[in-house]
Amino acid sequence: MPGDHSSKQYDMDLEAIRSKVLLMGGLVERQFNDAIESFRTGNVAQADGVIKGDEEVNRLEVALDDTCSHLIVKRQPAANDLRTVMATIKVITDLERIGDEATKVARSAKNMQERGSTGALNHYESIRVIAANTANLLHDALDAFARLDEKQAARIIAQDEVIDHEFRSIMRSMITFMMEDPRTISAALDTLWVAKALERIGDHAKNIAEYVIYVVEGKDIRHTDYVYTKLDSSI
Amino acid sequence: MPGDHSSKQYDMDLEAIRSKVLLMGGLVERQFNDAIESFRTGNVAQADGVIKGDEEVNRLEVALDDTCSHLIVKRQPAANDLRTVMATIKVITDLERIGDEATKVARSAKNMQERGSTGALNHYESIRVIAANTANLLHDALDAFARLDEKQAARIIAQDEVIDHEFRSIMRSMITFMMEDPRTISAALDTLWVAKALERIGDHAKNIAEYVIYVVEGKDIRHTDYVYTKLDSSI
Repeated sequence: MPGDHSSKQYDMDLEAIRSKVLLMGGLVERQFNDAIESFRTGNVAQADGVIKGDEEVNRLEVALDDTCSHLIVKRQPAANDLRTVMATIKVITDLERIGDEATKVARSAKNMQERGSTGALNHYESIRVIAANTANLLHDALDAFARLDEKQAARIIAQDEVIDHEFRSIMRSMITFMMEDPRTISAALDTLWVAKALERIGDHAKNIAEYVIYVVEGKDIRHTDYVYTKLDSSI
Repeated sequence: MPGDHSSKQYDMDLEAIRSKVLLMGGLVERQFNDAIESFRTGNVAQADGVIKGDEEVNRLEVALDDTCSHLIVKRQPAANDLRTVMATIKVITDLERIGDEATKVARSAKNMQERGSTGALNHYESIRVIAANTANLLHDALDAFARLDEKQAARIIAQDEVIDHEFRSIMRSMITFMMEDPRTISAALDTLWVAKALERIGDHAKNIAEYVIYVVEGKDIRHTDYVYTKLDSSI
């Protein structure tokens, strides 16, 4: 069957993997948004939905790794195609862990709701900014991966530092809260765990962005002081 | 050069990758032990050594991924060999993250030392048991990977729950400390971050064990209620 080995069939195989990754990315993004929303509103049913939904994220991880293995055997990819497959294998791991972190946010939302009073602490207000920034970073990372947009990827890598900075600022403010009113300690800790989960999601979004650059430029920029030299002034 | 494609040369290539992974594993284990030791003794120079040493862990991650890519192109592995390469690519990521967590422990050790007083809290005593258990789990996971010992891997997977349980117990005890004496809040939080890092290292050790079973049995047991059916009574 010569048609089976044509470049067109190969492209379709690669495209099928990309679509599945984007499907997984879309699901993970929805899990993230639902988790934050459940933390904001205290909607326990929504939090439960996120915890339950993680099973589908996990299923997609296993299925996608398997699809990548099959493609390697069937297509023996080289050069650019192999970079795409390698990057995909790594991105799958990041997406699965983002799913785990979303689940942790949902669990904290449930904990706080079940415990009741949070003293003077408006826990959602404390993480509102970092949550919005992390949501944008995740969305942009998935978008950069979908469009293989190295410029956007470079922007994400630079922005992750902002989230790390926000996390440290939340930590300082939670310490102040706890010292001033020890009744807030449990709620402040839950808020800190949520902030920590968001900071990790930012790290994973950065990882995804680094893999975009690996695919497009063929350069492994992890752990380097990468500066995108084609940046224009709009960034 | 027919010799270049012989099974013997191929085996040597695979063996070279395994050796490098074990080298990276050994380094990560040393980083972990040094980080815990610096937390115990407050030795800032040792903590700095761990932080500096993470660069070598990162370098090994990038180099090993590259070696795996080259092997896929050169050898076009199938079946069992491909499983080994896929598992290796994933294990490398886990090892790099264990290195990151060790760095976080070292940073907390520095923070506490630089801040001075920790009130009534003996911070090392609080994490002594979880640290010893995590050290064992990590050591056993690397050992199971080195010897492809599925029985030991199954034992590790079961033991990770003990570490999760210990983490939750430390969290409860730190909340009590903080409530009783708000001066301990900063030190208790650093202790909690260390406990959290250890809990994550336990998760990564479990991941490594799951990949051992994937290589040996050809089964992807992630996210399943895997029960090793060949367990004997000594476990």
